[in-house]
Amino acid sequence: MKFKQIGIVGAGNMGSMMGFAFSELGLDVSIWDAKSANVDDFMKQVDQASSLTGNITGFYDVSSFSASLGQHGDRKVFLFSITHGTPADEVLKKIKPELRKGDIILDGGNEHYRNTERRQRECQNIGVDWIGIGVSGGYQSARHGPSLSPGGNAAALKEVMPLLELYAAKDPKYSVPCVSNIGPGGSGHFVKMVHNGIEVGMLSALCEAWGFLHSGMGLDYDHIGEIFAAWNDNGELHTNYLIKIASDICKTRKTIDGKTAQHEGGHVLDDVLDKVVQDDDGTEGTPSWSIMESAMRHISCPTIAAGFYLRVTSGNREERLKIADKFSIPKPKPIQDIEDTGQMIEDLRKAVYCAFLASYYQGLELIARASIDEGWNINLSECIRIWRAGCIIQSEFIADLLEPLLKENNSLTNMKLYSSVGRELQCSYTALKEIVSRGIVADHYLPALSATLEYVKYTTGKMLPTKFMEAQMDYFGAHSYNKPGVLGEDPGPVAKGPHHFEWKPA
Amino acid sequence: MKFKQIGIVGAGNMGSMMGFAFSELGLDVSIWDAKSANVDDFMKQVDQASSLTGNITGFYDVSSFSASLGQHGDRKVFLFSITHGTPADEVLKKIKPELRKGDIILDGGNEHYRNTERRQRECQNIGVDWIGIGVSGGYQSARHGPSLSPGGNAAALKEVMPLLELYAAKDPKYSVPCVSNIGPGGSGHFVKMVHNGIEVGMLSALCEAWGFLHSGMGLDYDHIGEIFAAWNDNGELHTNYLIKIASDICKTRKTIDGKTAQHEGGHVLDDVLDKVVQDDDGTEGTPSWSIMESAMRHISCPTIAAGFYLRVTSGNREERLKIADKFSIPKPKPIQDIEDTGQMIEDLRKAVYCAFLASYYQGLELIARASIDEGWNINLSECIRIWRAGCIIQSEFIADLLEPLLKENNSLTNMKLYSSVGRELQCSYTALKEIVSRGIVADHYLPALSATLEYVKYTTGKMLPTKFMEAQMDYFGAHSYNKPGVLGEDPGPVAKGPHHFEWKPA
Repeated sequence: MKFKQIGIVGAGNMGSMMGFAFSELGLDVSIWDAKSANVDDFMKQVDQASSLTGNITGFYDVSSFSASLGQHGDRKVFLFSITHGTPADEVLKKIKPELRKGDIILDGGNEHYRNTERRQRECQNIGVDWIGIGVSGGYQSARHGPSLSPGGNAAALKEVMPLLELYAAKDPKYSVPCVSNIGPGGSGHFVKMVHNGIEVGMLSALCEAWGFLHSGMGLDYDHIGEIFAAWNDNGELHTNYLIKIASDICKTRKTIDGKTAQHEGGHVLDDVLDKVVQDDDGTEGTPSWSIMESAMRHISCPTIAAGFYLRVTSGNREERLKIADKFSIPKPKPIQDIEDTGQMIEDLRKAVYCAFLASYYQGLELIARASIDEGWNINLSECIRIWRAGCIIQSEFIADLLEPLLKENNSLTNMKLYSSVGRELQCSYTALKEIVSRGIVADHYLPALSATLEYVKYTTGKMLPTKFMEAQMDYFGAHSYNKPGVLGEDPGPVAKGPHHFEWKPA
Repeated sequence: MKFKQIGIVGAGNMGSMMGFAFSELGLDVSIWDAKSANVDDFMKQVDQASSLTGNITGFYDVSSFSASLGQHGDRKVFLFSITHGTPADEVLKKIKPELRKGDIILDGGNEHYRNTERRQRECQNIGVDWIGIGVSGGYQSARHGPSLSPGGNAAALKEVMPLLELYAAKDPKYSVPCVSNIGPGGSGHFVKMVHNGIEVGMLSALCEAWGFLHSGMGLDYDHIGEIFAAWNDNGELHTNYLIKIASDICKTRKTIDGKTAQHEGGHVLDDVLDKVVQDDDGTEGTPSWSIMESAMRHISCPTIAAGFYLRVTSGNREERLKIADKFSIPKPKPIQDIEDTGQMIEDLRKAVYCAFLASYYQGLELIARASIDEGWNINLSECIRIWRAGCIIQSEFIADLLEPLLKENNSLTNMKLYSSVGRELQCSYTALKEIVSRGIVADHYLPALSATLEYVKYTTGKMLPTKFMEAQMDYFGAHSYNKPGVLGEDPGPVAKGPHHFEWKPA
């Protein structure tokens, strides 16, 4: 191991966890935060910790922090755990005078890939390598081993790879570290952004399923927890992180102090309001960037977008309550005439699987497109591999389905061209359709599930109603069209057709 | 009228129509195109035209074109009809040496507002005013009077306003020109971009309805044409441009030469393939930019996004057919057990109205948000007013509903806070739900209609399933939450809550 020391910049929630993790892995850790209170809080936790191996030292001053990492001429490695955007720029500005040629900065924040590329150029000018590194899995993973997607200069990446392999989650199936050299530039942060986009589609489908079970099928939290646990044990959703924690959440009860998860008192879940504010309070940019990228690069990502729009609407609860009082849209009500409860739960499981799969497809197709556009040459099967452990979207069944296919044909830009993918969607279509139509009748919230149903239909449709849209656009915009059954036009390239009809002469 | 002459840059489809229009309004028109063939084609049409008043002169050379517009010291007005992005930059570069202080350029292309603002700064340096002007309504309107949304320097806008008022469509109801000073900077192009976003939501809902009538209810094109005509005559969809042309399209039959719309032979509609390629071939950027803006500014626009994702998927027909062969997702089939055909058509009409209304809300909320973010101070009721005629999204009933409300309270950022809006959505909810659930059972394509149904539900919901999403994010991300029933938290501001639960201690 080349590096015996690491300098962590940012002692917030994630930075602290990383500090503990690297000490436990045997490195000496220096940690600095522009906010001294964060350093104090962290050092208090360090004093109480028993599992440390390497020393951890907190710094209030950037010069002594930097000096602690080695003598003049030593190559230093810094790990930034700073909020993306302006805060990261401000911290870079503060630390820049301390940087020396050969130093490597790993930016572990959820940064926009264009900002990463800008800082890469800025740092290259002083001989410093800036690596944008996606760190997936939340704070538990940051402590015990996350999924890592680094991107940047290949030589610098090679230098730090042993360190990253040491830190990364180990895939339980193949025992390999969940880290891969994603590619040059901002590719690592792009892949992390898409990971978080996929996560939004999955989170939405799952909360819709929870609502269906609870207010549609009248099941209590403990029962739902058992269902999720069973899903996580077997079938297409086995060893699936979000399903696993969904089960934990449904079962978790409060103690009197409200802090530990003993099985007494009410469910903690009932303490949680329906406001998801991370997009609006600026702590999270990745979901909105994913939608922006999908729009810019023309990749259909309706499951992800549906989840995003649902959650941004959820955040402004005050406005929502005011509006609700002006409307009388019915609330979700019990699903009527359930003939076979077990079958309905099974249909719901397949519907959730289908939405998870669709979220994966949408995200992977976005990565494939960006990789071509930007010349990144991203290996999609490696994306699947590093998402096998440590991260939020880990889904063993989906990884087992996709990884071998993507190894065979890494240049594919549409996942649905695989026959085995077709089989999977085929099997879940009827179940998804059943859940969505039953849910709609009973006024349930199903944005991501119903968007997925439409996605499955129209991405596999031989004649879409867009025939009529195309005619309308030719009418008012003289956009011109292709004709059916004409060689070179049907199917023909994705290009303007040669025919215009003067529906209404100007 | 201050200006007796206008210089049109770009003799393509739209530029040609503008040339005719200004000549018919009495101005002398000089027209120049970097591509001489475009000038030749246009001048041939001019030779055959009989309705001209002002002279039209074509130019191959930019210097003589510019010289034709007046002596040294005269203030010249140019109207650009050039493809957005690089082509517009290249043309500006070519014409820049000819520009003099005081000249005004109206950019009538579908340009991104940030490009417009960049050119405004560039031109300001040489004393030239660049005005980004949305021109809505396609080529027929460009000839006979479009809806215009100009934005830029207020003094320059005042100069050209009489010219724009002369050219703009006149609202048949109030006989006022459909043009308004939208605001500074790129605000005019922003409003046009959103107009086109709203259009995508409407186009999608309408093509879905067409498919429902045709393959779901088994109605032939002529019958559907009659239904659309009736919708356009009365009720919530009366005097609605897209409905009107939908009726024309369903009735239009080919002649032997295929060029004129006589009632002989087959329907022209059957000559049109289901490929909408404008996004991918680069001719249209506005729909994807609208989605990007909605994501960036956190405005829920699911109807518009659903339409956009459907149409980008439609474009790659070759890939779609290959995929279809690997899947056996059922094709749309006849709706079973229709008790009352008239009632179902009426439900469909209300469903389309609801999706149109939702597209309007989503677009207006995006404009309202951008206006605040950018300091544009856009008058939303003026947007509604200028969309009353000339443009693609003109919907008299919706304009009559919204214009007075927005006059009263122009600072409102959520249309659904209006009681009368609530009533409208309320009335169409049951119909929309009926159509979507019947359509899903019969495997119809309903992305924009079903996205609208979900939108209506979740924007008016008192307790969303995002409660579960929020708990999941607190579990893995320590995002922390608000509690129900706690003062200051429920509903509370759109801000991070104070409570975190250690579901699984790190």
